[in-house]
Amino acid sequence: MTKKKKKTPVDISSLGEFGLIDHLTKDITQYHPGTLMGVGDDAAVIDGGQQATIVSKDLLVEGVHFDMVYTPLKHLGYKAIAVNLSDIYAMNARPRQVFVGIAVSRKYTLEALEELYSGMLLACKKYKVDMAGGDTTTSRGGLFISITVLGQAEKDTIVYRSGAQPMDLLYVSGDLGAAYCGQLVLQREKETFKANPGMQPDISSYAYILERQLKPEPREDVIDLLEKAGVRPTAMIDVSDGLASEVLHICKSSRVGATIYEEKIPVDQRMAQTAHEFRIDPTTCALNGGEDYELLFTVSQKDYDKVKDIPSIHPIGHITEANQGYNLFTTSGQLVKLTAQGWDSFKQNAAGGL
Amino acid sequence: MTKKKKKTPVDISSLGEFGLIDHLTKDITQYHPGTLMGVGDDAAVIDGGQQATIVSKDLLVEGVHFDMVYTPLKHLGYKAIAVNLSDIYAMNARPRQVFVGIAVSRKYTLEALEELYSGMLLACKKYKVDMAGGDTTTSRGGLFISITVLGQAEKDTIVYRSGAQPMDLLYVSGDLGAAYCGQLVLQREKETFKANPGMQPDISSYAYILERQLKPEPREDVIDLLEKAGVRPTAMIDVSDGLASEVLHICKSSRVGATIYEEKIPVDQRMAQTAHEFRIDPTTCALNGGEDYELLFTVSQKDYDKVKDIPSIHPIGHITEANQGYNLFTTSGQLVKLTAQGWDSFKQNAAGGL
Repeated sequence: MTKKKKKTPVDISSLGEFGLIDHLTKDITQYHPGTLMGVGDDAAVIDGGQQATIVSKDLLVEGVHFDMVYTPLKHLGYKAIAVNLSDIYAMNARPRQVFVGIAVSRKYTLEALEELYSGMLLACKKYKVDMAGGDTTTSRGGLFISITVLGQAEKDTIVYRSGAQPMDLLYVSGDLGAAYCGQLVLQREKETFKANPGMQPDISSYAYILERQLKPEPREDVIDLLEKAGVRPTAMIDVSDGLASEVLHICKSSRVGATIYEEKIPVDQRMAQTAHEFRIDPTTCALNGGEDYELLFTVSQKDYDKVKDIPSIHPIGHITEANQGYNLFTTSGQLVKLTAQGWDSFKQNAAGGL
Repeated sequence: MTKKKKKTPVDISSLGEFGLIDHLTKDITQYHPGTLMGVGDDAAVIDGGQQATIVSKDLLVEGVHFDMVYTPLKHLGYKAIAVNLSDIYAMNARPRQVFVGIAVSRKYTLEALEELYSGMLLACKKYKVDMAGGDTTTSRGGLFISITVLGQAEKDTIVYRSGAQPMDLLYVSGDLGAAYCGQLVLQREKETFKANPGMQPDISSYAYILERQLKPEPREDVIDLLEKAGVRPTAMIDVSDGLASEVLHICKSSRVGATIYEEKIPVDQRMAQTAHEFRIDPTTCALNGGEDYELLFTVSQKDYDKVKDIPSIHPIGHITEANQGYNLFTTSGQLVKLTAQGWDSFKQNAAGGL
């Protein structure tokens, strides 16, 4: 007789979001050869002959991804669409349709939902995307927003996370860490307001970082510029969980290593100033803050001449052989191991959580 | 100077789910001619040349769509997938990929999520659908499941709600009202259990109706049989909110009227027995109960010979000119107006709500 060991229930927070998804999806069987990419990239890819359909899906949860105290509903709607489009651009594809599922408690008025939708439709207008369907229902607690985006691309122009090669150059668009600092400010003002409800906060000097937090713009322009320059990145991902986490995603999918240079990481002066105010290293904000929705991509060295004059993209390092690992070359001249401490809703001590 | 009238905030429950969706989506602009059908049918349709991609999205919310007290997680996972596939079959299309978004509070263990996923993967296996992506995150309260399904069809075989013509025959598959009665039983047992926690409920005699509630099967077989018989319905919808509501949806989309016959509505004896136990008219359960996930469709009279021997589908009436309205011919010989009192999560007094 074998003694059956009683299993202790596993707390899901111990796995983290990526560990949980890996665990739950490990037994997936694929029935259709047309499912070219399932779980494991910014979006799924479905064969449509010469064309492919790109699909991304995201959930935004009140109290986890946004705080109604300081998130205007119109901004929330805009951001919900914007961050999903970002996943499609990160495949080097174009978004075409969005599907919106909303569960909302009865405390929300029609006007509140109109605000939310007006923000979503504004983002749809800016990026020329059709709101093609969805579902609206009640919830017992708070607001849940589920967005599905469908995009389109010529099949052979799609860029996955897995194509990076040793010696490729690593680029990132825009600047990093500002959205996280914007959230720190909003969080601080909320606490101040709770302590002194009569006080009117003055946040005008934080305009840039607040906009980065509340109204991110996906980098369609970068996709356009790369196309115009005739460059196809070898791998690409959008920066939603912090630069470090995304570099590691590309490296793991591509089975390569990477070295990035602290001095090359693009940070905005206004972000750095706020980071200092909060006694945080600006590099930490850039590496682990998240919600930047910039594009991180790798480019073959042979394309260097084509990309070197593209505005708003920055070389931050290069891809190495896998056995060289993931490294950050600091401004003080040290080589340190790059680790992902990005935002993870399942880990309570995650950086960037509310 | 004009006096600005102060608007009273509108309570969303006063609009109901369909009214709310109509209101929020009335300003949608469409940018892509490839979006063949957006909001307004069981699923959206996206042009892909000869083929089309069919997209449906649904949210399931704890405490609104399911009650964790009597819903085994594996069944819940199965049902979440099944009801979404039903929307794709209702377009006369074949589901290909599902995308799963889950927001879950930290009280759920890994084992609980494994159960949920095992049910989802079981449905994926049965209906040969790929689980191709999704998102898993935390919630502050309960479990939220958002499913998106992508399907495929030859563009000219898709069946919309809008194609019914006067004189067409109205068919429904399977039997109706049982899922609703199943829920009544579960709800009653929950109350009994709350009053006497020591009591073990005996629900074995309700096996059929409980299965209809907890583990619905989408009618892929009906789509197969119709195809084999060489019949394309002129309009089709799945029965999720009760027969009456769905007849009205087809009629409104097709700008026609309909007459259905009470004696023709397929009800199972086991459902009728339970309905009597609860002192509810079985016809009321069939008309307004919902969650049957049967297919309601219209067929041209010229196809009558092709459909008359198909098993498990039942003629229940016919389509009329719009000015004749929506009518139910009762077993007692009266002609009454058909009204939709189906399930609506926004209306607290809705039939079928938890």
